[in-house]
Amino acid sequence: MPTRIAVAGASGYAGGELLRLLLSHPDVEIGALTGASNAGQPLGALQPHLVPLADRVLEETTVETLRDHDVVFLALPHGQSGELAAQLGDDTVVVDCGADFRLADPGAWAKFYGGPHAGTWPYGLPELPGQRDRLRGATRIAVPGCYPTVSTLSLAPAIAAGLVEPDVTVVAASGTSGAGKAAKPHLLGSEVMGNASAYGVGGVHRHTPEITQNLSTLTDADVRVSFTPLLVPMPRGILATCSARITGDLTADEAYDVYAKAYADEPFVHLLPPGQWPQTKSVTGSNAVHLQVTVDEDARRMVAVGAVDNLSKGTAGAAVQCMNLALGLDEGLGLSTVGVAP
Amino acid sequence: MPTRIAVAGASGYAGGELLRLLLSHPDVEIGALTGASNAGQPLGALQPHLVPLADRVLEETTVETLRDHDVVFLALPHGQSGELAAQLGDDTVVVDCGADFRLADPGAWAKFYGGPHAGTWPYGLPELPGQRDRLRGATRIAVPGCYPTVSTLSLAPAIAAGLVEPDVTVVAASGTSGAGKAAKPHLLGSEVMGNASAYGVGGVHRHTPEITQNLSTLTDADVRVSFTPLLVPMPRGILATCSARITGDLTADEAYDVYAKAYADEPFVHLLPPGQWPQTKSVTGSNAVHLQVTVDEDARRMVAVGAVDNLSKGTAGAAVQCMNLALGLDEGLGLSTVGVAP
Amino acid sequence: MPTRIAVAGASGYAGGELLRLLLSHPDVEIGALTGASNAGQPLGALQPHLVPLADRVLEETTVETLRDHDVVFLALPHGQSGELAAQLGDDTVVVDCGADFRLADPGAWAKFYGGPHAGTWPYGLPELPGQRDRLRGATRIAVPGCYPTVSTLSLAPAIAAGLVEPDVTVVAASGTSGAGKAAKPHLLGSEVMGNASAYGVGGVHRHTPEITQNLSTLTDADVRVSFTPLLVPMPRGILATCSARITGDLTADEAYDVYAKAYADEPFVHLLPPGQWPQTKSVTGSNAVHLQVTVDEDARRMVAVGAVDNLSKGTAGAAVQCMNLALGLDEGLGLSTVGVAP
Amino acid sequence: MPTRIAVAGASGYAGGELLRLLLSHPDVEIGALTGASNAGQPLGALQPHLVPLADRVLEETTVETLRDHDVVFLALPHGQSGELAAQLGDDTVVVDCGADFRLADPGAWAKFYGGPHAGTWPYGLPELPGQRDRLRGATRIAVPGCYPTVSTLSLAPAIAAGLVEPDVTVVAASGTSGAGKAAKPHLLGSEVMGNASAYGVGGVHRHTPEITQNLSTLTDADVRVSFTPLLVPMPRGILATCSARITGDLTADEAYDVYAKAYADEPFVHLLPPGQWPQTKSVTGSNAVHLQVTVDEDARRMVAVGAVDNLSKGTAGAAVQCMNLALGLDEGLGLSTVGVAP
Repeated sequence: MPTRIAVAGASGYAGGELLRLLLSHPDVEIGALTGASNAGQPLGALQPHLVPLADRVLEETTVETLRDHDVVFLALPHGQSGELAAQLGDDTVVVDCGADFRLADPGAWAKFYGGPHAGTWPYGLPELPGQRDRLRGATRIAVPGCYPTVSTLSLAPAIAAGLVEPDVTVVAASGTSGAGKAAKPHLLGSEVMGNASAYGVGGVHRHTPEITQNLSTLTDADVRVSFTPLLVPMPRGILATCSARITGDLTADEAYDVYAKAYADEPFVHLLPPGQWPQTKSVTGSNAVHLQVTVDEDARRMVAVGAVDNLSKGTAGAAVQCMNLALGLDEGLGLSTVGVAP
Repeated sequence: MPTRIAVAGASGYAGGELLRLLLSHPDVEIGALTGASNAGQPLGALQPHLVPLADRVLEETTVETLRDHDVVFLALPHGQSGELAAQLGDDTVVVDCGADFRLADPGAWAKFYGGPHAGTWPYGLPELPGQRDRLRGATRIAVPGCYPTVSTLSLAPAIAAGLVEPDVTVVAASGTSGAGKAAKPHLLGSEVMGNASAYGVGGVHRHTPEITQNLSTLTDADVRVSFTPLLVPMPRGILATCSARITGDLTADEAYDVYAKAYADEPFVHLLPPGQWPQTKSVTGSNAVHLQVTVDEDARRMVAVGAVDNLSKGTAGAAVQCMNLALGLDEGLGLSTVGVAP
Repeated sequence: MPTRIAVAGASGYAGGELLRLLLSHPDVEIGALTGASNAGQPLGALQPHLVPLADRVLEETTVETLRDHDVVFLALPHGQSGELAAQLGDDTVVVDCGADFRLADPGAWAKFYGGPHAGTWPYGLPELPGQRDRLRGATRIAVPGCYPTVSTLSLAPAIAAGLVEPDVTVVAASGTSGAGKAAKPHLLGSEVMGNASAYGVGGVHRHTPEITQNLSTLTDADVRVSFTPLLVPMPRGILATCSARITGDLTADEAYDVYAKAYADEPFVHLLPPGQWPQTKSVTGSNAVHLQVTVDEDARRMVAVGAVDNLSKGTAGAAVQCMNLALGLDEGLGLSTVGVAP
Repeated sequence: MPTRIAVAGASGYAGGELLRLLLSHPDVEIGALTGASNAGQPLGALQPHLVPLADRVLEETTVETLRDHDVVFLALPHGQSGELAAQLGDDTVVVDCGADFRLADPGAWAKFYGGPHAGTWPYGLPELPGQRDRLRGATRIAVPGCYPTVSTLSLAPAIAAGLVEPDVTVVAASGTSGAGKAAKPHLLGSEVMGNASAYGVGGVHRHTPEITQNLSTLTDADVRVSFTPLLVPMPRGILATCSARITGDLTADEAYDVYAKAYADEPFVHLLPPGQWPQTKSVTGSNAVHLQVTVDEDARRMVAVGAVDNLSKGTAGAAVQCMNLALGLDEGLGLSTVGVAP
């Protein structure tokens, strides 16, 4: 019997990507689709690329609508997940693509998001050491942020092995879909095409404490993260350039070997051949993370670069991967390592 | 036993898209991959998005390499298919993504391509009336050009029903991948970004006679096609704006009904709800064609607009669809109507 | 003494382009800048590229603010120009970038815009035969729409010379800035990048009657215009592909000669050398229109292609050109034929 | 009498931008234009945006052609400038847009460029402390690299004031025109659109030692630069994200004040109002550099972001600025701080 799923927030980018992936998932039946202001509209008017669901009408996001599904995906603005989840029984797997249950530190929550701290759910990054087991059979899962996914995976092996000081810089160039589908002037095509810009500079972006939290699971030392997000003219994709001072002599080959070993068994982390650097288009629409690492011996820094599709592995793909783990399915069902390029 | 396939021209855009699609085809095993100047290189260096094939090394394009496969896909410059195909037995299905076997008229071949005319193979557009049956069991198939696919499907119902004069204008805005992967200055990113340009204006583009040929199968009258291709700043997709003078009184609703009836049973042709116009991104990476039609009663012209992914349904998707028909498989295996958007 | 100008609507795209051009105009002093919801904000927060005006604060759009300038440019939504202009004396030159005073036919106004018809002002397309003289010394000027500018100039010589039937098709691919700076979901960068779409199909776009009106000044016959606008992924530029059935035998050379003669003395219309086709990037930021023409003898249609920057010659450049004519200045002051490319 | 200039390498991007700027320079007359493989072609076929020069034919790049001009701009691949310059007398000002005369350290030259070290010419970054005076009256000028220009200006005040350790990271996202007009597959529009990629990672990019050299003029301490260039999908512009550990307590306001003071009199360096971050489009086609700075107190790093047009202030604009200084003209003649946006 197929797994019956619901998507709350089906008209947004994360919701649309969830449905794109779930439409090709062999074990899934798509149930309720909900929206906020778009409730009552056919999905075809909002997500014209999802042809098989064109005639499905969005319902209101209520517990009644979402109940009676095996899995409920929440692709909602933060602050809405907790109450909904509380009313869905533990026999329902709830996968939250929002931020509500990611941060363990109430102080970090208060500083970066504000409002009451909802707590934490198992963190949906199976590639973090030990994390996969926590996701197997879980009924509540917090999908990581897009920037933290690629930043964490780009730095984790080096931090875990002590190759670098836990004082890292991350400059991550993102496509625009990460900012969502709500119309804001600075996200207009006229503004973003031909334009690269920085925002949230100086440690104020909400994903900063999440990266810090992730890296802190890998070392006993205090972790410092200088995180700068950039907006670049593409709809999808994040390219994260991560660097840190090396703790001792370290060659590019040695760093590469550590990464190769760390990710040898990871189905979705692809360390490129030496000398080949990641590009976001290679992972468009896929669940793959592409990585490369080197050492700048003059500057005495290790530099790692990672590429991810912010909507796929960065959000919806991770959500499906986690659902598979939660349900005891093959982790890669409905997912692909093959990007759509060019 | 899976169908064993080979791809000649695996380093180009059509070859890459074929492999992307075939990697998710449930009945296919990927055999030989060949290149020209790239022979000897690993595919991962040339097509980094095809992670599962990263270590596969390109071989030379020879009959020996291609022999012993159930299906051989040719994604080669025109002029090379005939000789190769002649040496592959009739027990091998040969699907040619090039132009060699598309045009029946030797004069048109001579004028637009030059060199000896190879003849014709069954034309791989199953949506043309009667054409699907000719592809079932075929061992040689000529995949249509990308512009002819979307132009023909946008106009066919109207021409067949006599709604319009067979004197049509097609202005088709294409992404750059249709021009291939060979490096030419005018195709540089620096040139094409922020730029729209016309080329091949005045009836000189090679796809002109192919559109004429297709539409001529639908009417006894002489067909005239004014075709203008545009290059617009996107990697994939074609949006074709097609119009023709109406032959009598015709309302938008009447035209819509004719299109709805014509494509009611076509799995990959999606007539949008009235009032919704096609956009290329909805079909990116998919085998779908999106259509809409209306009538401008003041100008006395019917206007139909079609969107297609030039690499997918416009080339590689059609090739897989035709392979499925040739082998008696479900026509949609390995294909999707769901685009990657945004 | 410099000409003192004001710009109403200085926070939008047309207003910004006006200021960019006027900042390099040798005879102009920039006075009041007004906005609607943005009044009170410094221009630097809204138009960061206009560095010399960064500290200028937007005022409210009122007659009091705009009064006491030699020239007032109105870059406002249609419907607002008439009342403002009525209160500005005839000693003030008013250049309206909006649509209010373009259409002579009240029926066309009612059908395409609705609301009361304001009437007409001298039409700011000096390149139309006889039109330049009407603009010299004018105190009220209606700047043409962006699509009509390029469509009219692309077709005018052929219509005037009777080379083609006055039954034309125009398919015009536009960048997104033509849709303005108001945030709408379908104009988000995430939506428009990688995407080409059609809109306003079937004769319903508001610029249709303006093109018809312009071409009707050149022939006694009834003019029919089939106009289809496309949105393509670039911030600026329009490429218009225009065609019509030839009235008799006509070669490409003959058509070219007619165009060459028609525009021989036009400072801003640049007929490219034979065989070279327009591209929008060549005119980015400039007041130039690039044209080319040919004849498709098989299809028996003439095809002309024009490129314009919708914000420059398509709006703000034309406004400055008209101001120069109105004031008796050199027509090209502050304007350039040199685009910003690549 | 106007300054008579020649441009060697007029068919490339730097050459085209030089001509675009020089066409609006009030004191300049454009003399010889030379090319390599393009010699003999009209400029209009190669740079269609330079309408006033469309009929000028490219000559061969020889001393004979370039002689008898007041100023010769060299926009050539590195390695060709020295010999040409040696044969041009000291009465000719030679402005080299290439790398040949930038690096003082023969070891750095050998490591990053190879071949014989040509020496150094006055370095064309007038905004470096003391540098403007060295450029006044100079007859040989080495125009800085595009990345070094924006990286240096983003970091100089902090390094000079000792606000940060001279151990900096620079991640700079560049448009594609920096890679030139030679056709290479990875620079095709199909590859770069929708794509962000890293290249030259780990301290191997040729601009690394130039940044180090510049910053070293500002401090006695050893300077370490970790430089990572990114390619992002836009034709022009560089956004450089620069950071370094702060040496003591430092607030964002204090850092801002240091920058404000450092650049108070610089005509082309524009420190944005606090809280507003640079974007490349604001400087497109202009000679302006936009900067912003803050301090991340948690990460204990200062972060400065700079935006520049790689072709304008990053190359050709700097060349014109330097020419003005060399000739004793107003430094800003023919240059603008106003970008072309959107």
